[in-house]
Amino acid sequence: MKKEYLYSPGPTTVPPEALGVMGAPMFHHRTARFRALFAEVVEGLKDVLQTKNDVLVFAASGTGAMEASVANVLSPGDRIVTVNGGKFGERWGQLGRAYRLDVDELMIEWGTAVSPAQIKKHLTDKVKAVYIQLCETSTGVATDVKAIAEVVGKSGAILVVDAISGLLCDELLTDAWGVDIVVGGSQKGLMIPPGAAFVSVSKKAWGLVENSSLPRFYFDFKKAKKSGDKDDTPYTPAVSLVRALRETLALIKGEGRDTMLANAARYAAAIRAGMQALGLELFSQASSNAVTAVRMPEGADGAEFVKKLRDTWGVTFAGGQEALKGKIFRIASMGYLNEFDVLTAVAAVEFTLRSMGVAFTSGAGVKAAQEVLLG
Amino acid sequence: MKKEYLYSPGPTTVPPEALGVMGAPMFHHRTARFRALFAEVVEGLKDVLQTKNDVLVFAASGTGAMEASVANVLSPGDRIVTVNGGKFGERWGQLGRAYRLDVDELMIEWGTAVSPAQIKKHLTDKVKAVYIQLCETSTGVATDVKAIAEVVGKSGAILVVDAISGLLCDELLTDAWGVDIVVGGSQKGLMIPPGAAFVSVSKKAWGLVENSSLPRFYFDFKKAKKSGDKDDTPYTPAVSLVRALRETLALIKGEGRDTMLANAARYAAAIRAGMQALGLELFSQASSNAVTAVRMPEGADGAEFVKKLRDTWGVTFAGGQEALKGKIFRIASMGYLNEFDVLTAVAAVEFTLRSMGVAFTSGAGVKAAQEVLLG
Repeated sequence: MKKEYLYSPGPTTVPPEALGVMGAPMFHHRTARFRALFAEVVEGLKDVLQTKNDVLVFAASGTGAMEASVANVLSPGDRIVTVNGGKFGERWGQLGRAYRLDVDELMIEWGTAVSPAQIKKHLTDKVKAVYIQLCETSTGVATDVKAIAEVVGKSGAILVVDAISGLLCDELLTDAWGVDIVVGGSQKGLMIPPGAAFVSVSKKAWGLVENSSLPRFYFDFKKAKKSGDKDDTPYTPAVSLVRALRETLALIKGEGRDTMLANAARYAAAIRAGMQALGLELFSQASSNAVTAVRMPEGADGAEFVKKLRDTWGVTFAGGQEALKGKIFRIASMGYLNEFDVLTAVAAVEFTLRSMGVAFTSGAGVKAAQEVLLG
Repeated sequence: MKKEYLYSPGPTTVPPEALGVMGAPMFHHRTARFRALFAEVVEGLKDVLQTKNDVLVFAASGTGAMEASVANVLSPGDRIVTVNGGKFGERWGQLGRAYRLDVDELMIEWGTAVSPAQIKKHLTDKVKAVYIQLCETSTGVATDVKAIAEVVGKSGAILVVDAISGLLCDELLTDAWGVDIVVGGSQKGLMIPPGAAFVSVSKKAWGLVENSSLPRFYFDFKKAKKSGDKDDTPYTPAVSLVRALRETLALIKGEGRDTMLANAARYAAAIRAGMQALGLELFSQASSNAVTAVRMPEGADGAEFVKKLRDTWGVTFAGGQEALKGKIFRIASMGYLNEFDVLTAVAAVEFTLRSMGVAFTSGAGVKAAQEVLLG
């Protein structure tokens, strides 16, 4: 009877409304019924992204859509700029090298954000595309996408933003800011299980697609658009997930996009305040509202902490990845959460630190979080 | 309250046992809990494929795994043999050309099967891989994979078999026959919703992977194997589908692999007998047990027939694709079916042909099917 709590930066808790339709009987996707569903979902995604650009949906996890955003717009040897400030920014560089591009990889300290000035310095005439994250999931860092979009918008390059974890937590105004490709995933702010991913593609990006010669097939943008224009997909869609997405998009619409963003900001602020009141140090120098990365106190192991949280309290946080393994833990403030869930997360930190013999003022974390939430 | 019946060659009816877990609360995939689940599923897939080879699972639909079976084993300019005898065999050729391979595409009449002798004629020393289907879903044709594997096994080339629709309907003994790569999908004989696909990879195929220089990332075999060896996946798996797959694999094990194959054979035979008793002509010259393709009678439109079936009777068949549009219809005999479902499918054909004014002996189809089923 132990209750389970998900605060991992994907997958997030799926609301019962969406779980309910996941188990509904299967139906065929080459039907008016599916096309009506798909059209509704694409409209909902456009609203979430604040875009009138094409939105293409794939049966894949987010990395598939990241790869698509490389393979569809470039040709071998093309120069791109990527920012390695965490595991997912690093992935853009790995993707670029896998496709034999000329990758100018900005190495920044993990936990810090890239500045528009740094991007500008690397934006030579040769650069075809700049790849950044809205939220770098591995470090809890938010990027100033708006300012970077302004810089990149004046160049010939396109701006590609991995918004997989940041969406609906950190603001992203695709069209108003001029972001050419946005990459999104299903199991974060959109609150459905993993296995669906999507991209929005601007007119400027379509221009690159026309001249790109990298090989692609399953993730082909042009085929997805051709089918998408008829509310269809070129290959079999993940029907259950598309169905669940209709439910969560309806919840998001009901709640209001702005409310979702404001809530994530409040919850993340409460979590930060709670952690600091316990004497813990935040890892990120530019806090995202999607995920908060916290340094483990000296002498306490982050992997043990995360394991104890899950095994003893049924609470799932994420640990650190790669070089940060054991050194940080991460608490997501995405999706289907409310104030009590935030307090639970902070209380679980207190319970677990206590069992590990870490000294702190009992109740201080929950109290600080509550003060932020009460405003 | 209209009941719905799925006889499309994917997606197929999902058994309630699997639907039930689709709607269970989400949990994190980087856990012992997921690894135990994943290990069980991979073992089950190995049993279905009758292989000790590595089995790699992707969050994607079948075409993604088809692409993976090209991108991971070849280098630009490599020669491959593909067989265009239907829409899915044609896809291997399209994939090969998308990756700038030297594609030797055997054009055979749609509805016929490629012979081992034809393959042998094209198997020069230069050929690196031969791509065929176990069942060509668009035409209902089964390929003699065993005999072709014998021919290809003597060459330096690997044999890749698209078993997406054929699996558990048409026999496939991966190791005994020596098939190097088998491609499978979720929403056919495995009876779960679309969005998961997998491949098995032989030692001979791994040899090609080592020397292949085509770009890949999300579908990278080596990364999938490295994670798979720890019962894990390199990128976020489609957790709900993996969970559902455990349920259907348990059902398959309970029923018995041989019983599943024998049932599909009996059901397909009953469907064929039913159609012929109605004076309808079978389209395939080499009938698969996964799907039966039937020619529409002169003057009757297949698209209208399929639409009437669905709208009036809640019965989903598939129509013809590409050049076969309107000319054939297709009835699947995969997965979660029993004798009464087969009779229902045949009765639905009778009801619908009657409403379209096609002449036939009333009840003759159902009677013929029943005779086959009673044995």
